[in-house]
Amino acid sequence: MQLALEIAERGAGYVSPNPMVGCVIVDSEGNKIGQGYHERYGQAHAEVNAVESVKDTSLLKNATVYVTMEPCAHEGKTPPCADMLAGLPIRRVVVAMQDPTAKVNGKGIKKLRNNDIQVDVGLLKEEAEQLNEFFLHYENYNRPFVTLKIAQTLDGYIAAPDGSSEWITGEASRKRVHEWRSRYDAVMVGRNTALLDNPRLTVRHVEGRQPRRIVIDGKLELPKDLNLFTDQYEEKTIILTHNKEKFENEADPMLSMLQSDYFRGSTLLLPEKDGHTDLNEGLKKLASEHRVTSILVEAGQNLASALLRERLVDKVACFIAPKMLGGGTRSVMGMGVNRMKEILNLRDTNWEQVDEDMLFTGYL
Amino acid sequence: MQLALEIAERGAGYVSPNPMVGCVIVDSEGNKIGQGYHERYGQAHAEVNAVESVKDTSLLKNATVYVTMEPCAHEGKTPPCADMLAGLPIRRVVVAMQDPTAKVNGKGIKKLRNNDIQVDVGLLKEEAEQLNEFFLHYENYNRPFVTLKIAQTLDGYIAAPDGSSEWITGEASRKRVHEWRSRYDAVMVGRNTALLDNPRLTVRHVEGRQPRRIVIDGKLELPKDLNLFTDQYEEKTIILTHNKEKFENEADPMLSMLQSDYFRGSTLLLPEKDGHTDLNEGLKKLASEHRVTSILVEAGQNLASALLRERLVDKVACFIAPKMLGGGTRSVMGMGVNRMKEILNLRDTNWEQVDEDMLFTGYL
Repeated sequence: MQLALEIAERGAGYVSPNPMVGCVIVDSEGNKIGQGYHERYGQAHAEVNAVESVKDTSLLKNATVYVTMEPCAHEGKTPPCADMLAGLPIRRVVVAMQDPTAKVNGKGIKKLRNNDIQVDVGLLKEEAEQLNEFFLHYENYNRPFVTLKIAQTLDGYIAAPDGSSEWITGEASRKRVHEWRSRYDAVMVGRNTALLDNPRLTVRHVEGRQPRRIVIDGKLELPKDLNLFTDQYEEKTIILTHNKEKFENEADPMLSMLQSDYFRGSTLLLPEKDGHTDLNEGLKKLASEHRVTSILVEAGQNLASALLRERLVDKVACFIAPKMLGGGTRSVMGMGVNRMKEILNLRDTNWEQVDEDMLFTGYL
Repeated sequence: MQLALEIAERGAGYVSPNPMVGCVIVDSEGNKIGQGYHERYGQAHAEVNAVESVKDTSLLKNATVYVTMEPCAHEGKTPPCADMLAGLPIRRVVVAMQDPTAKVNGKGIKKLRNNDIQVDVGLLKEEAEQLNEFFLHYENYNRPFVTLKIAQTLDGYIAAPDGSSEWITGEASRKRVHEWRSRYDAVMVGRNTALLDNPRLTVRHVEGRQPRRIVIDGKLELPKDLNLFTDQYEEKTIILTHNKEKFENEADPMLSMLQSDYFRGSTLLLPEKDGHTDLNEGLKKLASEHRVTSILVEAGQNLASALLRERLVDKVACFIAPKMLGGGTRSVMGMGVNRMKEILNLRDTNWEQVDEDMLFTGYL
């Protein structure tokens, strides 16, 4: 099962909104005879890949199948894995965790048991849940798992008084962020960051899948010549706005096609809340309409503070550089906390040194 | 020598302004026959304690003496150790580092060599220098070694918007601060901290020597009923002020003795600089007049920022709690840095987890 979890992770970034799943098959003597993982959304499931990897199919007799999540019981993009497994002469299936999606949720396990296959559930369950925390969050709450990334000085500043913000953290930290970008479904920034830094938000320092890019542009007034709206990943950009009038104008194909700055990505119209785009509704819509299961927020002070204030952040990942500014833009300001007893305590915290920097992670 | 360094450290907090020194004696066969360390200022030096610990003095013949700092060559509170050692039938003295003080500075080594004792210098020199960084700084620059302690949230706040500041960091971190208090000659706070928190700045959570307490009270207007001015360690409190008139009034024994709030500690009159007490002059005077070799600054935002701005801090020790406030008092504000290229890079940095908190240390 440990191996199954490890190979499952190779699908990170590619299988969403499906979970990452790994599968290892062991013959009646205890020798590994096959393995596979869900490699890409829409393609074969882990169990199919594992079974297909078995060279001598006679060894499947009385074999044990280890799989990190309950085999599916429904016809999806591929036929149900539970049926496929039930048709094999295997003796036992060990499942790390049940699949919580309504269409499965125990039905796959039942199918196997109905075919006289022994099913044991719960081996390395916690690890399996941790592996698929994005998927589980998305399934349970119908919204993406949101991680707020901060890169700050020791004294909590993300930019110098003159506004410059580059190179606070070191190369290893920046590389780590690119790894994350390849694993999260989407990267999110606010209007100011998009405008002032003109970021690309692509994966460059490591190999990996390019993420979707989400920009909050409440008034829909960001210039359309920014990198996010013009580069080769333009279609991966999603704008969140509450400006109904401009949204409807831009949505008119006849009008917009005539404009030289026609944007080929998506724009989501959302309600307004206290003068800003309703972020809570935005997250819900990103989940329901774009099947975004996870978002890495690489925001400046405004968006970071707004998300924290509305408690829309699930995890904080904060790089701290061994430097001090003593002034400039604070990482977080205006979270609505007034007294010490209202302090935001993070749980399941972890500290990890990344070269000269420290990386803190904690859950809300 | 490793053992000599270890036992030397037992004198931490007690031997200042002397250095910590440890000594181990090994006979001609290589067996340890004695050890000792400088235990308390004004009392016997390490070499004397080590020689006195040797039970069979016949073993001193051709013995080797390991000592973490060059034996003294001058008559101080005790007779010169170099003379004492030169009178023994030993063969060799191994010294980790030369004593930089003008009165010694090689003279002790020379005395030994003149008496046909082999002297080797430099074994574990770096460790010996690290052990006595306070002493060396004091000797080299005639000012105390200053460590700025900060206890903040992840986002760099030391107090909530309502001013409350207690319990940001955990118990293990607070205990560590008490250990430091017992090792530094003095603890320093600014006016606001003294007034608002009314701290005692004593060693409580661990065993150890009580430190002197330094309060910056520029206008000399702090009420004399604060803990620092009335508790059993009142004499250990030193006020730094630039209010000449009030200073002279309070210094008049006839006038002040009549007052019920007569303060038995020390008050240092310093020049005024930009409306504040001149901290640079204050440090110099604390070294020259009070022989303070090391200061742990447990300041609020004002004093911390002022010391950093004037580059009077040698080391930063920053506890970071896994909590966020998003508002309140920042740890540092107004350091005079404007552009990213002026950022304060700390060197020889170290990150250490202390329970749930992270402790960063770095040198300026």
